[in-house]
Amino acid sequence: LAHDLTTALQARIDAKTKPPGSLGRLEDLALRLGLMQGTTRPVLTAPAVLVFAGDHGFARDGVSPFPPEVTPQMVANFLAGGAGINVFARLAGLPVKVIDAGVAVDLPPHPDLIDLKVRHGTRNALQETALTPDEVALCLDRGGQVVADLAARGCNAILPGEMGIGNSSAAALITSALLDIPLADCVGIGAGHDPAGHARKREILARVQARHPGVRDPLEALAAFGGCEIAMMAGAMLAAASRRMLVLVDGIIATSAALVAARLAPAMLDYAVFAHVSGDGPHRLAVEALGGRPLLDLGLRLGEGTGAALAWPLVRAAAGFLEEMATFEAAGVSERTGVAPQP
Amino acid sequence: LAHDLTTALQARIDAKTKPPGSLGRLEDLALRLGLMQGTTRPVLTAPAVLVFAGDHGFARDGVSPFPPEVTPQMVANFLAGGAGINVFARLAGLPVKVIDAGVAVDLPPHPDLIDLKVRHGTRNALQETALTPDEVALCLDRGGQVVADLAARGCNAILPGEMGIGNSSAAALITSALLDIPLADCVGIGAGHDPAGHARKREILARVQARHPGVRDPLEALAAFGGCEIAMMAGAMLAAASRRMLVLVDGIIATSAALVAARLAPAMLDYAVFAHVSGDGPHRLAVEALGGRPLLDLGLRLGEGTGAALAWPLVRAAAGFLEEMATFEAAGVSERTGVAPQP
Repeated sequence: LAHDLTTALQARIDAKTKPPGSLGRLEDLALRLGLMQGTTRPVLTAPAVLVFAGDHGFARDGVSPFPPEVTPQMVANFLAGGAGINVFARLAGLPVKVIDAGVAVDLPPHPDLIDLKVRHGTRNALQETALTPDEVALCLDRGGQVVADLAARGCNAILPGEMGIGNSSAAALITSALLDIPLADCVGIGAGHDPAGHARKREILARVQARHPGVRDPLEALAAFGGCEIAMMAGAMLAAASRRMLVLVDGIIATSAALVAARLAPAMLDYAVFAHVSGDGPHRLAVEALGGRPLLDLGLRLGEGTGAALAWPLVRAAAGFLEEMATFEAAGVSERTGVAPQP
Repeated sequence: LAHDLTTALQARIDAKTKPPGSLGRLEDLALRLGLMQGTTRPVLTAPAVLVFAGDHGFARDGVSPFPPEVTPQMVANFLAGGAGINVFARLAGLPVKVIDAGVAVDLPPHPDLIDLKVRHGTRNALQETALTPDEVALCLDRGGQVVADLAARGCNAILPGEMGIGNSSAAALITSALLDIPLADCVGIGAGHDPAGHARKREILARVQARHPGVRDPLEALAAFGGCEIAMMAGAMLAAASRRMLVLVDGIIATSAALVAARLAPAMLDYAVFAHVSGDGPHRLAVEALGGRPLLDLGLRLGEGTGAALAWPLVRAAAGFLEEMATFEAAGVSERTGVAPQP
């Protein structure tokens, strides 16, 4: 971050026609955008929603109330423009690209689908490691490739999202391993279990964890638990940060990818903005562990990048006021007297 | 509210391709929009930001760190498109209309300025009542007239904002009177006092309150403390609610107008959505007293309608997902099994 610009950025923010500090967290965000981009006039260019899709070997074992067929069905829904992320991205003026990171079935080509499939779903982590170290490396690389392609076309902000039946389970296992906190604190309701389903999810995940004891390393965690979409998101986040691009972090699964990325390169967090804290309890814990201050708190738990797309107008507003608001001087508005005027 | 539509609206929300409840507060909001409009397919049409401007007799007595000249200067800034509200409204696709409710000086005509001036600033509430009962009634009427004109052109949602040096003081006095809570709990930092200025503001407002003891009625409170812009906002809110239009409530001053409106007609709150809870402490208290659940919590305290404009994309997203998202059936996506699938 360009910390040498802090004073100049703060002066620019304070010259705007408003009481100092009165735009609250948008002022902090404007400052951060300037530090990220190394300029007192940050601009957001060609932002894109990236939905990474992948399947999970343990998805048939009862960790999700939805069958794994829903992953490719939802990919088709994304490509047809009918999912939540499509609606929110459209309203925010954002394009949506879908990346096949590891969907279990072959997908028909589509202009908005990027085929970077590393495997047809992960192996079942109940029985073996979900991914080999080489597969993890390939996922990270390919996530970086997606971002490099976007950057070449002028993009300086990404909104990573995901789809994958079972991936809140992988996220819980990764989060528990990397934060070294009890698994039970990391297992959310995901796509919405009833209490019996939730209990079953916790029981299965405890068995998965017992099958892979002592995992604390981010690459080991990705290998042990998967999935391709989480690893590829982490790779995209790392590549984005290394190019000084903004990463708008979505929900519990995107946050597990951010956790992996931050463990591999802590400076990644300088470029991360946490879009929201979700309605899935463990998310707050993970965001706080990463020092994040979520912009929204609306009980969202859909994933897909929906929380990021919903927070995007706030990020755009932060850059917008810094660029477009008049200064006291230009607008001919009197500044505070400092001393209260006397009658 | 069309409570008979609750079941049909909830079924429509639950048919969308997402786990039930996973859009959190946006689902509540979509439901409320349907109940307000009396349809399972609510739409938001021709929304508008309305910035009501007025001056306050006690503004020269040290209640604000800014001199009262700033009110017309900021009106000129709004009309030139350079203020915070202009930037955020532009980004959200909202027009901004400025209403001269009671600015102390005459203002030159402008296509976006609506001249409904009731007086050249309020009288000084330290010495007398700020407005006569007739002036209060005129303000309420004229606020209703603004909304009637908008409704005639197809508007079904308003975002009221305000500008007026000294108006956070009037808001504090009104809030203390109507909620019957100590004035000290209602006095925020407004446009940003230093501690000495804040102490002075509290001392002056205590004197104003002592000058008008026992005020508990909403119309009496408007008369005693002013101002024209708060009364006119309250009138606009009442008129909007009576036409089943959405009222997106901004910060501490707009909330004091909502409090007046709610005391005059409690059903007004059925049409109110609280955009944010501001960084000015007493705002939270007032929002909670009105049963509001703010969408944003970003430490904003600028007023002008900026918090409402920043929350607008969330309201639009709530209506948007209900209208545009595919259903499980249409998208060919499998629903939850209810029973967890077995291996």
